[in-house]
Order: sequence, then structure tokens, then C-alpha cells
Amino acid sequence: MAIRPKSYKYATSVLWTGEKKGALTVAGKPPVEVATPPEFKGHEGIWSPEDLYVAAVNSCIMTTFLAFAGRAALAFQGYESEAEGLLEFVDERLVFTKIVVRPRVTLGPGADRAQAEEILHKAEKNCLVSNSIRTEVILEPTFG
Amino acid sequence: MAIRPKSYKYATSVLWTGEKKGALTVAGKPPVEVATPPEFKGHEGIWSPEDLYVAAVNSCIMTTFLAFAGRAALAFQGYESEAEGLLEFVDERLVFTKIVVRPRVTLGPGADRAQAEEILHKAEKNCLVSNSIRTEVILEPTFG
Repeated sequence: MAIRPKSYKYATSVLWTGEKKGALTVAGKPPVEVATPPEFKGHEGIWSPEDLYVAAVNSCIMTTFLAFAGRAALAFQGYESEAEGLLEFVDERLVFTKIVVRPRVTLGPGADRAQAEEILHKAEKNCLVSNSIRTEVILEPTFG
Repeated sequence: MAIRPKSYKYATSVLWTGEKKGALTVAGKPPVEVATPPEFKGHEGIWSPEDLYVAAVNSCIMTTFLAFAGRAALAFQGYESEAEGLLEFVDERLVFTKIVVRPRVTLGPGADRAQAEEILHKAEKNCLVSNSIRTEVILEPTFG
């Protein structure tokens, strides 16, 4: 196992604000309210840790795609992606067993669909959040 | 491996909005802007996938603590927590190798510090995000 010396640090804080709610902060960025979701006796309409986890995977695949697509000069015009995480009891503990990520890439004139698909799969494989989790990430791309 | 039939689904979407930016949405919740961070040629002042990942762990430990502390009728008056994720190159791929979570629990009169510490460790062990990741989560609690 080779570890290069270069590393990065990411710090976030959470402050309990009462009931099952808190305020998430990262220095220099807008705060995000967080709460236990309703299905675990929490609150409606507020981002939950579960949402943040699925969003981290979904957005990491997008940003990694943007980096690789830029380097490859892929002619794409749009990107949107739905991700659905499945939380199940495994050996009596709740675990995200899989996240299905469904990116839809709108290609420009002259874009190579096979190349776009290859870049998407490369993005999923190299996404640093995917690399850090046990949850299976299943990519189901479509092209417009 | 026993899987109970009960399960939960969490869906989020991300829409590319140009440059290295996107809009994250969950039905019925406020949107969150997301972007590649500056160290990977992105943008300042916007939540990154890396931030979301560390925030998911940090907030999950808080909400799990709130559930267990409620059940145990722990007399606590405050909770805040800083979490720092370390992203390193492992075998040429970026991976979150560890997240240090530093909750500070303010105890009320008559609260048992040993009980609070036990509940915190139980929260980390049962946090469904911790359960789903490879990243090592290190809990360093303090009490006020």
C-alpha cells in the first residue's frame, strides 16, 4: 500500500439546536440545517444525515465526471443525476447496502456516446467518496 | 447475514449548473449548492462532496446520540461536534482514510459523565453512516 505524502483535510461542525435538529457549518460556506428524518422520529423538510450521505456520492460522481470530461474535451451540454440509497438491517444494524446512481448526460453535436459512457464509469471508479465506502454503488447512465 | 424485511430509501438529485457547480435537491427540502472544491480546480465558498461526506458522519453521530440519550433520559444541555476528515492517496487513489469526530457534550446537574461517554460510543458504533463506510471513525469526546 503506497501512500503519497499529499493529503487534504475537511472540517465540518454541527451544533445541536434543540429537538432532533442541528446546524452544520463549514468555514466560509452557508450553513445547512440537519435533522433526524421523520421515519426515525425526527422532522420533515430538513436534510438528514442519510440525505447527505447519498448526496455526497451523487455529487462526487458528478464532479469527478466534470474533471474527466473536461480533460477529454467531451462535448456535453447537460448533466443531471438521481441517486437512491437503500438502507437495510444487516445483522441487526442499519447499513446503506447500495446506492443506485442514474446520471443523464446530454451530449452535444459530434459527441461520442461510448466515450461519454466510459468517462462516467471512470468517474464512478475514481470518485473519492465511492472509494471510501462499503456501500455498493451501481451506475445506470442514460444519454440524451 | 440476517436481513430484516424493513428498509428505507433516500433519493437525491443533482443538476449541473455550469463550471464545476451543481444544485442538490431532495423532495420537499431546501436545495443545497455543491461544487468541486478549490484544491481540485473548483470553487470557494460552496459545499463540496468532501464536506457532505464528513458532515454526514458528524451529523449521524449527533442524531444517533440524541436518540440514545433520549431513551436513557441523559441530562444533557448542549452538544456540538467538530469532525475532520483526512483524504489521502492510497494506491494512487484518493480515499478518506479517517475522520476524527470531537463531540463536546454539556452535561446538566446530576448527569453521569461515564454514562454520557458510553452513550456517545454506542452512538458512533450504531450510526448508520459509520456502519456503511470504510473510513476509520475516531471519536474524541469532551464534556462540559
